[in-house]
Amino acid sequence: MTKSNAFYAQSGGVTAVINASACGVIETARKHKDRIGKVLAGRNGIIGALSEELIDTSRESARDIAALRHTPSGAFGSCRYKLKSLEESRREYERLIEVFKAHDIGYFFYNGGGDSADTCLKISQLSKRTGYPIQAIHIPKTVDNDLPVTDNCPGFGSVAKYVAVSIREAGFDVASMAKTSTKVFIMEVMGRHAGWIAAAGGLAAEKAGDPPHVILLPEITFNEKRFLAKVKRCVKDYGYCAVVVSEGLRNRDGQFLSEAGSRDAFGHAQLGGVAPVIAALVNRELGFKYHWAVADYLQRAARHVASRTDVEQAYAVGKAAVEFALQGKNSVMPTIVRKSNKPYRWAIGSARLARVANVEKLMPRNFIDKEGFAITARCRTYLAPLIRGEDYPPYKNGLPQYVTLKNVAVKPKLEAFRP
Amino acid sequence: MTKSNAFYAQSGGVTAVINASACGVIETARKHKDRIGKVLAGRNGIIGALSEELIDTSRESARDIAALRHTPSGAFGSCRYKLKSLEESRREYERLIEVFKAHDIGYFFYNGGGDSADTCLKISQLSKRTGYPIQAIHIPKTVDNDLPVTDNCPGFGSVAKYVAVSIREAGFDVASMAKTSTKVFIMEVMGRHAGWIAAAGGLAAEKAGDPPHVILLPEITFNEKRFLAKVKRCVKDYGYCAVVVSEGLRNRDGQFLSEAGSRDAFGHAQLGGVAPVIAALVNRELGFKYHWAVADYLQRAARHVASRTDVEQAYAVGKAAVEFALQGKNSVMPTIVRKSNKPYRWAIGSARLARVANVEKLMPRNFIDKEGFAITARCRTYLAPLIRGEDYPPYKNGLPQYVTLKNVAVKPKLEAFRP
Repeated sequence: MTKSNAFYAQSGGVTAVINASACGVIETARKHKDRIGKVLAGRNGIIGALSEELIDTSRESARDIAALRHTPSGAFGSCRYKLKSLEESRREYERLIEVFKAHDIGYFFYNGGGDSADTCLKISQLSKRTGYPIQAIHIPKTVDNDLPVTDNCPGFGSVAKYVAVSIREAGFDVASMAKTSTKVFIMEVMGRHAGWIAAAGGLAAEKAGDPPHVILLPEITFNEKRFLAKVKRCVKDYGYCAVVVSEGLRNRDGQFLSEAGSRDAFGHAQLGGVAPVIAALVNRELGFKYHWAVADYLQRAARHVASRTDVEQAYAVGKAAVEFALQGKNSVMPTIVRKSNKPYRWAIGSARLARVANVEKLMPRNFIDKEGFAITARCRTYLAPLIRGEDYPPYKNGLPQYVTLKNVAVKPKLEAFRP
Repeated sequence: MTKSNAFYAQSGGVTAVINASACGVIETARKHKDRIGKVLAGRNGIIGALSEELIDTSRESARDIAALRHTPSGAFGSCRYKLKSLEESRREYERLIEVFKAHDIGYFFYNGGGDSADTCLKISQLSKRTGYPIQAIHIPKTVDNDLPVTDNCPGFGSVAKYVAVSIREAGFDVASMAKTSTKVFIMEVMGRHAGWIAAAGGLAAEKAGDPPHVILLPEITFNEKRFLAKVKRCVKDYGYCAVVVSEGLRNRDGQFLSEAGSRDAFGHAQLGGVAPVIAALVNRELGFKYHWAVADYLQRAARHVASRTDVEQAYAVGKAAVEFALQGKNSVMPTIVRKSNKPYRWAIGSARLARVANVEKLMPRNFIDKEGFAITARCRTYLAPLIRGEDYPPYKNGLPQYVTLKNVAVKPKLEAFRP
């Protein structure tokens, strides 16, 4: 039985539970020391592999590795860096092979979204082309929930829970202020192309009149007139209106609303912020007093209110990735397979990377109601189990105790390389 | 022993724990049925008293009243409405007396900040002037922590915890992205005049290099040059920079930064949002990629991450208000008195309303370090116990279960009145 080291890296925007996947990888690898030597992590994702900045995770205590399960963000650093095709980036792929060889790496675990699945796929193809034996397994991660094949993505459940909890709480707040003050509240959430995160806000509305009253999705072109009519009706019927809006909301011309409008005093376009644009519109056209919030990183870092389901699934895909590798698999990704809704049961499946890479899963039209401002019962059935369960981190002095690893560098063996 | 009804109302911006005070008032009153008949709540604060829109809290179950302890926002509705002097608003004060008489109200409990303490003071003076026997007790509430005399304000500890937890989490996020993406993160929090909320973010930084690296307070005039130098140095030293900024940050001319800058495409001033202004500045002058968040209502409604200390104190001031009333007190406010720091111990005290009304407690200069961007050890000692302890609400299907009361109206006995 051959034994080699494993490489693990985190890619793209981080989540509240990507470290739970790292924990699953490392804890599982440590149980198979006959087959897997060390888990070497890339410092700042794939860049760490290219620049030979590797972290020796064997230097971390079992206790610190266990603490990754409740620590948000990427413990080894992540990056936004996409490798191009084998032809275009030949030198980079060759460099990866050099680094893998130099550090006796036979397993490549890449934890990310659609782009990183593509990188992982290409690395899995290196094995055939170059004759260097490497098994590449992709571990799904994205708050956007836009990966295909898998029922859902680790990372999404926790941001979904954050959004549903937050809009419920803010809704209670606005309801109590509406008589003499704020009547419209707008909360901006992530989702550049897919509306899954904004849709999750809809879970907070369990009966007619509950907030949020309006959800604005990237899948539905923004119609100013119909939106304003809806807000007006809500204020009339319920006294107030709570809105969840995707950062990726677009107008008829396909422009992001966040970029279509405002400029600072110097005439520079203000980047980001569709919530203030919507708020200004409501105020200008309807005269209502408003408040708005932009959750930004708070939503995807909010480990303090993570979904237990999400944490368990994130750990499970990390664990499964190592098990797949030990079974000799290559070019695959562990998936979440939904077995039943009532009770909610799930299992780990497997997808060929070629089916995953560069495919974006948007909200199906039958998950959005006819009017376009709410989710359907079918969508609710899909989303509901993903936010279920709490999994609080330990606290000390009123603050969650997240771990910062030692991240001891492996001594480089090769010449420097600039990605 | 005379027996009369009590009036209770919520005033101004609501908090994560103002309902815990309501719970303290109602549960304590229910234990003294020999002296206190019903607790009648004002619908939407003092407006409910003026318009004779009273809520009969005796119609609520013990279970629902108990659930107020873990429910954010104002269960009876709040309002932003300040009564003027007795001379200027004679008709309104006369109306209040009429309503109190009509509903046999002998106790007036007003739950709010500095403005409502002033209203409460005036009502306490009505008793002498008009001969109508009413005892007015103010119950402290404000996220801003700006009331004098009391060591701290119920409502503040929970928003402080939210801010410290959130900036810690977002700091972890940015740290892992900084190599190839976001280097500066800016989180805007409440605090129009006093910087207590932003200062609480500083609790997350327990050792050198921990986020937040910069805190921008309303007490310190914004100095663009020194701020930019500080951000640049942080990025150099730590790879990234996390900033907490008070909405009330002002420039040398005394202008709010949030109002000094941006206009929408139609030339209208964009209301709110100092975070995007700071972010644009950083990007323009230093070229760093940035992200920004505006927590807005999410921070003060975040009962899911409330401070247990805060919840206990909020309940205690509600309970104490009723006990003060039963002791025959008038024109007072229960206060939090700090007995010791290690271990943290507190007790309920009492303040004359004349000392509380219309006084705003800002951050003392020795709570802010020399450079103006961080809190001192003295400030940390003061703030630390206020966020201590967790007090999670019950969850069902992944969502916190907050109560919505029946809020049964008391039949009006007087002619209509328009405040």
